[in-house]
Amino acid sequence: MARRKRSSQPGSDHPDERVRRSKEAVLAATYQLLSEKGLSGASVDEVSLRSGVAKTTIYRHWPTRWALLLDACSKLGPKPEVPDTGSLKGDLTALMTFIAGQLRSNRMATVLPSILDAAERDSSIADLHAKIHTGFVAPFQKVFELAQQRGELPRGCNHSELVAAILGPLFYRRWFSRETIDNRFIKTVIERAVATSKH
Amino acid sequence: MARRKRSSQPGSDHPDERVRRSKEAVLAATYQLLSEKGLSGASVDEVSLRSGVAKTTIYRHWPTRWALLLDACSKLGPKPEVPDTGSLKGDLTALMTFIAGQLRSNRMATVLPSILDAAERDSSIADLHAKIHTGFVAPFQKVFELAQQRGELPRGCNHSELVAAILGPLFYRRWFSRETIDNRFIKTVIERAVATSKH
Repeated sequence: MARRKRSSQPGSDHPDERVRRSKEAVLAATYQLLSEKGLSGASVDEVSLRSGVAKTTIYRHWPTRWALLLDACSKLGPKPEVPDTGSLKGDLTALMTFIAGQLRSNRMATVLPSILDAAERDSSIADLHAKIHTGFVAPFQKVFELAQQRGELPRGCNHSELVAAILGPLFYRRWFSRETIDNRFIKTVIERAVATSKH
Repeated sequence: MARRKRSSQPGSDHPDERVRRSKEAVLAATYQLLSEKGLSGASVDEVSLRSGVAKTTIYRHWPTRWALLLDACSKLGPKPEVPDTGSLKGDLTALMTFIAGQLRSNRMATVLPSILDAAERDSSIADLHAKIHTGFVAPFQKVFELAQQRGELPRGCNHSELVAAILGPLFYRRWFSRETIDNRFIKTVIERAVATSKH
């Protein structure tokens, strides 16, 4: 990747293409470092060393380290799409199955605790974490709205409590009890979450 | 504290008392460092510096850094007692109110994410975390057994799923969504958790 950055023979590459490649190299290095060493290992110095892209170039594209980290985190895995299966349970099953897959295999799952940890001590990382967390929650909000339109959830139902009942047990198994998240577990979590939301 | 360690005038202090004090100073320094800097800040070197107790003395009482960390973590807050209010909901409310209080004010709540983070990369910390986690779960197991004896929970009910339905939303609010954990929230979590466990 260092070679790419320095291959500046005119005409061999369109400048836009070079910028695209160097940004890609920086993001790739950032999330490699994040997943290998956690948040504290992903400094701009280390990213520059690993990607072969100069720090000044990095700062040209990302004004702060947090902007870079946020961008790298947002690329750690595909975003869940809002499902539309026609039923609340169907939509929740689709969403949770997708997230469970990410928790099993995705780098994000290994990196997130280091972000949680730093967020306890640093408000700019708490902001970064809040943005990542909003990405998790947004598709659930949509699914609840669809369910309310179909009359499957009452109008006044508390979305934030419902999300806690769904993501809570999932996250708990991944990071706290470190137990398997299988389809049976997903099913019982959904049963419990919607059981008392209907009346 | 450094003074205490070095006050070795014979007769001024009973040897057992000196040992007790120096162990206390080491544990106090360890959990100060844990809560200020997270797990990576609590090395035996740093603990020795902060407590004024020599490393050799520290290693005499705790054969490994993990033994020390586990001991310090276990002293971070009082353990929840097993409540016995006579009903499942009463017992769960008592337990969750106690844990919610710890999550709001206890140092453990600030330290735990750094343990989760390190557990992703280091199996000896994964063991440490498993021990801490067992401490959280044990009183719930007892409460479920009492409920089964009273016929409030079916014999075959899955304890690990129930714990996930109870601790999951609580931990989710503390470390992921960073929302308030109030009595209303505790009530709805319990309602949901036990709703589908009764049949």
